[in-house]
Amino acid sequence: MKFGLVARRDKAEALKLAYRVYDFLKINGYDVVVDSETYSHLGEFDEGDVIPLEEFDVDFIIAIGGDGTILRIEHKTKKEIPILGVNMGTLGFLTEIEPDETFFALTKLLDGEYFIEERMKLRPLLQSGKPVPDALNEVAILTGIPGKIIHVKYYIDGGLGDEVRADGVIFSTPTGSTGYALSAGGPFVDPRLDVVGIIPLAPVALSSRPMIVPADSVIDVKNLSTSRKTIMAVDGQFYCYIKPEVEIRIKKSPRKAKFVRFTREIYPKYTMKLKKRF
Amino acid sequence: MKFGLVARRDKAEALKLAYRVYDFLKINGYDVVVDSETYSHLGEFDEGDVIPLEEFDVDFIIAIGGDGTILRIEHKTKKEIPILGVNMGTLGFLTEIEPDETFFALTKLLDGEYFIEERMKLRPLLQSGKPVPDALNEVAILTGIPGKIIHVKYYIDGGLGDEVRADGVIFSTPTGSTGYALSAGGPFVDPRLDVVGIIPLAPVALSSRPMIVPADSVIDVKNLSTSRKTIMAVDGQFYCYIKPEVEIRIKKSPRKAKFVRFTREIYPKYTMKLKKRF
Amino acid sequence: MKFGLVARRDKAEALKLAYRVYDFLKINGYDVVVDSETYSHLGEFDEGDVIPLEEFDVDFIIAIGGDGTILRIEHKTKKEIPILGVNMGTLGFLTEIEPDETFFALTKLLDGEYFIEERMKLRPLLQSGKPVPDALNEVAILTGIPGKIIHVKYYIDGGLGDEVRADGVIFSTPTGSTGYALSAGGPFVDPRLDVVGIIPLAPVALSSRPMIVPADSVIDVKNLSTSRKTIMAVDGQFYCYIKPEVEIRIKKSPRKAKFVRFTREIYPKYTMKLKKRF
Amino acid sequence: MKFGLVARRDKAEALKLAYRVYDFLKINGYDVVVDSETYSHLGEFDEGDVIPLEEFDVDFIIAIGGDGTILRIEHKTKKEIPILGVNMGTLGFLTEIEPDETFFALTKLLDGEYFIEERMKLRPLLQSGKPVPDALNEVAILTGIPGKIIHVKYYIDGGLGDEVRADGVIFSTPTGSTGYALSAGGPFVDPRLDVVGIIPLAPVALSSRPMIVPADSVIDVKNLSTSRKTIMAVDGQFYCYIKPEVEIRIKKSPRKAKFVRFTREIYPKYTMKLKKRF
Repeated sequence: MKFGLVARRDKAEALKLAYRVYDFLKINGYDVVVDSETYSHLGEFDEGDVIPLEEFDVDFIIAIGGDGTILRIEHKTKKEIPILGVNMGTLGFLTEIEPDETFFALTKLLDGEYFIEERMKLRPLLQSGKPVPDALNEVAILTGIPGKIIHVKYYIDGGLGDEVRADGVIFSTPTGSTGYALSAGGPFVDPRLDVVGIIPLAPVALSSRPMIVPADSVIDVKNLSTSRKTIMAVDGQFYCYIKPEVEIRIKKSPRKAKFVRFTREIYPKYTMKLKKRF
Repeated sequence: MKFGLVARRDKAEALKLAYRVYDFLKINGYDVVVDSETYSHLGEFDEGDVIPLEEFDVDFIIAIGGDGTILRIEHKTKKEIPILGVNMGTLGFLTEIEPDETFFALTKLLDGEYFIEERMKLRPLLQSGKPVPDALNEVAILTGIPGKIIHVKYYIDGGLGDEVRADGVIFSTPTGSTGYALSAGGPFVDPRLDVVGIIPLAPVALSSRPMIVPADSVIDVKNLSTSRKTIMAVDGQFYCYIKPEVEIRIKKSPRKAKFVRFTREIYPKYTMKLKKRF
Repeated sequence: MKFGLVARRDKAEALKLAYRVYDFLKINGYDVVVDSETYSHLGEFDEGDVIPLEEFDVDFIIAIGGDGTILRIEHKTKKEIPILGVNMGTLGFLTEIEPDETFFALTKLLDGEYFIEERMKLRPLLQSGKPVPDALNEVAILTGIPGKIIHVKYYIDGGLGDEVRADGVIFSTPTGSTGYALSAGGPFVDPRLDVVGIIPLAPVALSSRPMIVPADSVIDVKNLSTSRKTIMAVDGQFYCYIKPEVEIRIKKSPRKAKFVRFTREIYPKYTMKLKKRF
Repeated sequence: MKFGLVARRDKAEALKLAYRVYDFLKINGYDVVVDSETYSHLGEFDEGDVIPLEEFDVDFIIAIGGDGTILRIEHKTKKEIPILGVNMGTLGFLTEIEPDETFFALTKLLDGEYFIEERMKLRPLLQSGKPVPDALNEVAILTGIPGKIIHVKYYIDGGLGDEVRADGVIFSTPTGSTGYALSAGGPFVDPRLDVVGIIPLAPVALSSRPMIVPADSVIDVKNLSTSRKTIMAVDGQFYCYIKPEVEIRIKKSPRKAKFVRFTREIYPKYTMKLKKRF
């Protein structure tokens, strides 16, 4: 069994815990690779074990950080590698364990006492064919000029869903429903569902409301803003400009995100994290 | 082929159109039965064709009215009979055609040029075993004393979903997402989805938010209100009191509502009706 | 200086603390009267000091309980008597001190180290002339049949404000903005302001939004619901039915609620209580 | 009596109507100056009458366009000149008349049959002392990187109002309550009121809610975002960056916006325009 290690770069405890995990796994005879960005913030790892995240080809990734760390892994790795997330962030919707549970959890993982949870992702397709990463949380079509609305139409399976003048429109997975989509007024969506939430962001029209549509719908977004800059943001990690009249197609990705879980419990474990957003 | 006829009782045009449909179908040699409540408001139908809605055993029901008329049919009939709804209501989310399309639509129906859309329903189960009708729109647990909150906990598949102090909690089908659930702040839900929306009604806690969960979840609602009257309302048609400490289980019904449709189009046909709620 | 004493009837600690306050004031030579309902739950007070709340004619009322206790005092007393609220409730927006601060606060009160905060109230006027208590929190026009909407129009200074189909409409003071009005989606309103919040409760129309209008506006509410029961609830304490076509006029009351305060601080003291509604 | 003329530059009818107004006033012997930007789009005006908006020193400005045109006038002119707005925009909350009423309205204006409505403005003060225009609609503190939250604290009269992680926070006048503030979830505020609406934009915390505070409060906003760009946008017309740790003070401006009105009616005239935002 081979492991990959990634830590939040801006938190000393995360880096320190990463090193202890590295040590533990090496002593127990496992192969471990360390993400080069993590290494650049803590040089104690064996240089021979350091490779870029993009080249990770391991059985599991141990991610020490918050949801941002996990989103970075999802955006950089090429394979569907199960992630065990150790929460060193604020809310940690995607992480599975707290720091003090790390070695207990690793032992269970090594003993095979776990299961893999799969989460759907969205794939945005640009007309230009330019490659864009899949979204684990959301594809957000946003104004590039703060305070100036954009104008878009979106179509569900070819039929007009809505015409929106707003700060933006968020196309969210169930995983993303606890993030930006929630802030914009969307509902919490059970992570087991195969649906897309469409949430307008500060819409001019009082009748523009959040929508939930099947994940196997084909969603086409047409940018009708002429003179203004429109942006596409994927998981708050990847950004690009969208030209006037350009269409973006959003479909369910063939790829999944995979997470190591020790319990199938969603309620109240997951929903209690929501309450902390007060 | 045998038809059933039901009209909105408080609208003369609806009753008149019902008679014209009756006449048209009889002349063309079809068996037609007329709902006795419709008959009690327009006595021109042949008395031998009049039977209570509860005894309808026909191939199609022609419903002339609004969503209220269709909900009444769903609550009273014992079989899953496809309904063709003619819109004589305000918004008519469930009806398929406008009055002036009636005879054109009937001809298409007789020619077999239609398809049947199925919609999921929810089945509330009381601990007492007392029978309760299925909900096409929603099961609402509400305060019986206007302005006084109730206190409930609900569980999803055994795990606590939320503890709510509010005017009520709405458990809505996708069909119901354009009704009471929408007024209470819930999202629009695509009717093809198999999900339940849980929407708190004027909750005290700012963190109580709408939720979307799988329709095959088992939802248990526990009434924690002690001295106050709690009510269960199914589709705004069936009402009963819920005693303190009583639990209600809400599950997907094995029965479906069936509708005659001439087009599979949802967008923008369906969403444009939303815009009329301004 | 003469004091009145009122305690929450359903909480033993509140009654016990009330007796200690009674004892303290008597020992220090002050006249004290005790509310008869409080007495009926704790018989230790001197019977000669017990009178109904309606007959209180004192310099200060010490209220031991939550906002409900204070609302009861406001509805029952005939004079504008300053209230010192001791928080034995959940949030206690209207109370000034916590139980363990009671005797320290009483000493400051006796030393004159306090000021009086005034809060505006609303006066609903029925066409019938029937007397209705002033509202410290809100006048709510509500459906009497849970889950069935009412239909009302309201006018601001003679001009149509909105026509609403909803579970109800809440006319709220700034004090009430942290209560039912907030649950229904209204904003927090600074208690120093002289305004009325008009908040629709689960409105059918997506365009019905909360409104803030001057407190010296004349607001007329016309009940257009025909067959259904419409209710007026004042502070969740006083209830009456409103007949079809009846108009209710809502004006700022000439009376104020008066509270003993030891600090003029509103932020963050007051707003932090909001955060506890999670 | 001396008039100034400003028209929306991107609409031929607006420019054409501006010329007819110019002609009418000149023929009737009045002095008229024309905004140089308007002139640059329609060269038919007498060049001698053309001056920059910044130098307008007239009794009335006739503004032909939408709210954007009026905001431009407010931001550019140095004096408090009453504006008569002719609606050539979408909603036109600030304009008084429709194009076909123009000459009837001018006649009334010349006859003195009008009154002046004053609207409050907000004045943002930067620590640097850099001059910033007053806001007729709103001062918005916004993220400069779409989709990345900012972190701010704001204080009301020295006390913490809220700590917000959000896309932004909008500080709105009553006039602005029908604009960006409404899109962000704020209430409609009667234009006669002297209040400020504070509306968080897609806040992370579910407990962050719109607030209404007195206009004579001193509001201090502290930018706690470290690495990210924070922007201040005044009426969507003036933009500047706000550095980390910088505080912005927002106060009621000593200047008012003045509008020519022919009726004191607010309801339903004003609120009906709200309904058009569907």
